[in-house]
Amino acid sequence: MAVKTQIFELETRHDGEIIDITKNVQQALTSSGLKNGILLVFVPGATGAITTIEYEPGLLHDFPDALDRLIPKDIAYEHHLRWQDGNGHSHVRASFLGPGLNVPFSESKLMLGTWQQIVFLELDNKGRHREIIVQLIGE
Amino acid sequence: MAVKTQIFELETRHDGEIIDITKNVQQALTSSGLKNGILLVFVPGATGAITTIEYEPGLLHDFPDALDRLIPKDIAYEHHLRWQDGNGHSHVRASFLGPGLNVPFSESKLMLGTWQQIVFLELDNKGRHREIIVQLIGE
Amino acid sequence: MAVKTQIFELETRHDGEIIDITKNVQQALTSSGLKNGILLVFVPGATGAITTIEYEPGLLHDFPDALDRLIPKDIAYEHHLRWQDGNGHSHVRASFLGPGLNVPFSESKLMLGTWQQIVFLELDNKGRHREIIVQLIGE
Repeated sequence: MAVKTQIFELETRHDGEIIDITKNVQQALTSSGLKNGILLVFVPGATGAITTIEYEPGLLHDFPDALDRLIPKDIAYEHHLRWQDGNGHSHVRASFLGPGLNVPFSESKLMLGTWQQIVFLELDNKGRHREIIVQLIGE
Repeated sequence: MAVKTQIFELETRHDGEIIDITKNVQQALTSSGLKNGILLVFVPGATGAITTIEYEPGLLHDFPDALDRLIPKDIAYEHHLRWQDGNGHSHVRASFLGPGLNVPFSESKLMLGTWQQIVFLELDNKGRHREIIVQLIGE
Repeated sequence: MAVKTQIFELETRHDGEIIDITKNVQQALTSSGLKNGILLVFVPGATGAITTIEYEPGLLHDFPDALDRLIPKDIAYEHHLRWQDGNGHSHVRASFLGPGLNVPFSESKLMLGTWQQIVFLELDNKGRHREIIVQLIGE
């Protein structure tokens, strides 16, 4: 049993961008040398989120559309009134969705469904440089 | 310290069904022989989710009602326009709620509250055969 | 490698209260003696939640405001009709947000962003005594 820490980087481009990071996470798993265990994909920041989705063009519209309906950009946020950075919606969305995702792995492979990819959601109101942590525990 | 993988199966019946899987997860824990640790309950698929709820008849209506209000079935989804499978809402809901849940355990028992059950949410627009993974790490 | 269980207590005051528990969690990590691993912060109860947020006064209004818009207090909940405890919205919100959060740690420190704090959300319709579990696995 061991703990391994892997970090990879992303350059995001815009608010609402959904990036398939399944290969990055699988590569972190392969590099770790671990076979069976649990890994945690985590963004150390308050305006991004990690989840899973079927990564196909329709849902890349539908999911941000739902965020725009549920937690709109163009309503008043006290965060924005204080800091004038225009990203109150980004923070609220990120707290709803959560900064991390756990995935089980077995025989050095992610135990995902066939149509299930791991994604990073850029929720900030501009592109960002992102470091994504993959913390693995296993044997 | 060891990693154990347990899998159990469910036959779901309809969209919005909430199934109490607390006993299945406790049985997976008992079978693992582990005493103290963390387990991850995970659905390998993009139209289901895992969370906790007080499993009583009122909330079994209230929670799906909230999903119907927030992420409706009868609006346009590009996923549906492409694939004609009528389950755009299922995917968006699943990405919001997340495919996994972590639960701590101690002395071979789940550390849940008295009125807190672990549930699988069927979010697809028909009943499905589901495999649920329980990945355990502990001693 | 070892598993450690730490528990701390909170006295909450009102529905929608957001409490910064980052120091409590860091103290649990320090007390555990572990250096590298994953910890799970978990509330054993069906009307609280754990997430991360930038803990500043603007967002302490914006996040509960979003909850009030999305899952209102003043609509009919069957949970309330059955139990007359007035907290149907609390349960639905808690199931959406989830009872737990995983955080990676390295060199005995939480791997959080600079502006990212761990928070407990009191979602029940009154103040409560809360026990929060921190389950740690690492080396």
